[in-house]
Amino acid sequence: MTPLAYLDSHQEEILDRLVAFASIPSVSTDPAYKEGVTRASRWVADQLSAAGMQNVRINPTPGHPIVTADWLGAPGRPTILVYGHYDVQPPDPLDKWKSPPFEPTVRDGRLYARGVSDDKGPMLIPIVVAEAFMRTEGKLPVNIRFIIEGEEERGSVNLGPFVKAHAAELTADFLLSADGAMWRPDEPSITVASRGIAALEFTVRGAGKDLHSGRHGGAVANPAQALAALVASLHDANGRVAVAGFYDRVGEPPLAVRKTVHAMPFDSARYLASIGAPGEAGETGWTLLERMWLRPTLEINGLWGGYQGPGTKTVIPCEAHAKITCRLVPGQRPDEIVAQIAAHLQANCPRGVTIEVNPGDHGSEAYEIPGEHPGLALAEQVLEEVYDQKALRVRMGATIPIGLIFRQIGAETVFFSFSTADEDYHAPNEFFRLQRLKDGTRAWARYWQELGRLDAGAFRGSK
Amino acid sequence: MTPLAYLDSHQEEILDRLVAFASIPSVSTDPAYKEGVTRASRWVADQLSAAGMQNVRINPTPGHPIVTADWLGAPGRPTILVYGHYDVQPPDPLDKWKSPPFEPTVRDGRLYARGVSDDKGPMLIPIVVAEAFMRTEGKLPVNIRFIIEGEEERGSVNLGPFVKAHAAELTADFLLSADGAMWRPDEPSITVASRGIAALEFTVRGAGKDLHSGRHGGAVANPAQALAALVASLHDANGRVAVAGFYDRVGEPPLAVRKTVHAMPFDSARYLASIGAPGEAGETGWTLLERMWLRPTLEINGLWGGYQGPGTKTVIPCEAHAKITCRLVPGQRPDEIVAQIAAHLQANCPRGVTIEVNPGDHGSEAYEIPGEHPGLALAEQVLEEVYDQKALRVRMGATIPIGLIFRQIGAETVFFSFSTADEDYHAPNEFFRLQRLKDGTRAWARYWQELGRLDAGAFRGSK
Repeated sequence: MTPLAYLDSHQEEILDRLVAFASIPSVSTDPAYKEGVTRASRWVADQLSAAGMQNVRINPTPGHPIVTADWLGAPGRPTILVYGHYDVQPPDPLDKWKSPPFEPTVRDGRLYARGVSDDKGPMLIPIVVAEAFMRTEGKLPVNIRFIIEGEEERGSVNLGPFVKAHAAELTADFLLSADGAMWRPDEPSITVASRGIAALEFTVRGAGKDLHSGRHGGAVANPAQALAALVASLHDANGRVAVAGFYDRVGEPPLAVRKTVHAMPFDSARYLASIGAPGEAGETGWTLLERMWLRPTLEINGLWGGYQGPGTKTVIPCEAHAKITCRLVPGQRPDEIVAQIAAHLQANCPRGVTIEVNPGDHGSEAYEIPGEHPGLALAEQVLEEVYDQKALRVRMGATIPIGLIFRQIGAETVFFSFSTADEDYHAPNEFFRLQRLKDGTRAWARYWQELGRLDAGAFRGSK
Repeated sequence: MTPLAYLDSHQEEILDRLVAFASIPSVSTDPAYKEGVTRASRWVADQLSAAGMQNVRINPTPGHPIVTADWLGAPGRPTILVYGHYDVQPPDPLDKWKSPPFEPTVRDGRLYARGVSDDKGPMLIPIVVAEAFMRTEGKLPVNIRFIIEGEEERGSVNLGPFVKAHAAELTADFLLSADGAMWRPDEPSITVASRGIAALEFTVRGAGKDLHSGRHGGAVANPAQALAALVASLHDANGRVAVAGFYDRVGEPPLAVRKTVHAMPFDSARYLASIGAPGEAGETGWTLLERMWLRPTLEINGLWGGYQGPGTKTVIPCEAHAKITCRLVPGQRPDEIVAQIAAHLQANCPRGVTIEVNPGDHGSEAYEIPGEHPGLALAEQVLEEVYDQKALRVRMGATIPIGLIFRQIGAETVFFSFSTADEDYHAPNEFFRLQRLKDGTRAWARYWQELGRLDAGAFRGSK
């Protein structure tokens, strides 16, 4: 039996495995889920062992463990890193889920569960592909080093130090990432650039305790109102970020890049309809796709203060909070951006309140793979074979910090993910298309087979 | 035994009764507490019966019941209404309470529990005073009609229609209210004016679902940011409400009133320290006390949207919410104010979002008792006797809708409450001073005795 035939005949079993994996609540950002994260790391290690990988290790970090494994029995062939993550986003708001987030449910050819698209489905693919080669041929066509982390949703905070400390054991020609996403369900695509991220939250405090808004109203500042004024001050009337210095390191995108973006088969109205948005918004002077791919943003991810229950509570809350993340373009530095926003907030602090700013542990610069990297061409070739249509090179508004993390040890990142951007990751009712599970296993197997025809020196100039 | 001696010798038992009353979670604004509210209404009715009152009734309303009772065996003497409420504010935020809100706890001469100061302690006073008269003298010195409602914290929404429908059974010379509050612990005071209230909440909606803020950030509006901009737009740089028409019916306060306010023994720095506020804030051009007593306000009682948990969640929330109440001065009309704010919000609706405004069921105009009302003079006389110092006439920033509700049946309201403005009602760790329970029973007994020396015609001109 060939590896491809093995994969075809095991699709149901692969789905069962994904269901088991997605049942583990491995939310990395919330300490309440620590046990789930630990359990998921063990599950991944067990799968790698069962697939016949060697040196399977659950490496502790100051946060959640990083699972590594390798198989290096293809002398003279290329060596690649394979990356994925086993942690998931928080499932809130729970009441918006049609089936519980950690009870994976198949509906209409889709598997619904938190993390199933980001990144449990896509990251299970290379593991089962490795298993297929080992069970049918007893070997892989290339040398592979798996590195599967548990903190991608926290900004991969411990991955950088780990990679640096283990550079010798992670030597590779390049990295093939199971994380990332195709931009649309009907067109194969490869992501060649991603935006960076900077995160912070801040608290506005007024009186030492909640006050009756009748008794005290008019005398002192209302922190919820002060917070709103501060949040509102972060953008100007043209939708530009109004923080001093924010655009200082933002270069004009090259004309060639803008041209490529304009040439994309992208219909704004169709896109807006797909997400149920009443209209577009954002920085004036740029097209919708440019704003998503080429321009930095500042978004409020959450804000709260005072009473949220039913009815009325006549209170002046003693504090209010906001969570912010920015998406960055090449040149912008996360720490500097956080410092600029903190300075803006303090400089605009309304009368009668104090502000405390807490930088997030999330921070990553933007990333772009050189266009001539041979790993990209190979990805295009395999996708065209699997989908019978040309793959598009697309950019991504989201952040995958791994590009820069692995560049520090000389490995560029080829995104080869089989999730799709519309699969509601980071939102309720996240799902993964079962067809992508099938496509993905076939594509990864074909990629490794094609890569195994090249010799180890083929990537020397592309590092 | 005299009624006063009876009250003195029963203070411990009265406290036990207040503990039992405050243990009932009668939160009127949250349907989850419906059973508690019903239980509290029965408890009040039982107390009135036990005190020897007649015609005790639990009157259903479209909301929570109104408990009534009377004793009319003093022919030729004045007849007064006695008002209080058995419902309480929500206990949130629960984690800020030192002892659970519905497990009344005595610490340092204070009883801590939700509702103990507003209004369960004060409203228990006239009931036990009635009992003291009935047990010792077999009669009351005046004619009394009790009316105890369960929706004061919801703006007394069903009290007005009830009073109108039962005008004949509620005929009285004036109303003596157990609700209200002394302004400070160290000076007896009588409230002669209160601000009105108007309430609404609004929701800002963007896309049909939560979106990944990396993937989609820059393309569409962020409802949390739009909400902040809308909230910020409600005030101008001078702290004035920036809603068109808001001040149209606000008259200049009479010079005499401003003079009285300026003459108050009030130390802003001491006040700010007492509530732990870093400084004052609000409308420029008015003193702190003027802003609290004589000027209307618009306060954000709560706002929320997006992720509030630990860590980061990179989401563009699909909606965000805010709750608003305004305090009104004489002339302003609650419905008109709500309509003006709704119009302001719609007129300022940012691009890419929609707004839904929901008026609250809370609405009441401001109230002021004529300064020459004989019931006021009597209150001053009794307070001076109990406290051995002159009582101050003070105004109040908060709202007690009853003033206007009972004015419609010809009864002005004399506030004769023994809670104190610093007792953290509407906030965590609400408490009631045990000394006030003692002072209050004595003062109410003396008030009724003095009132019983006047004849039924004494108030004819003051209706």
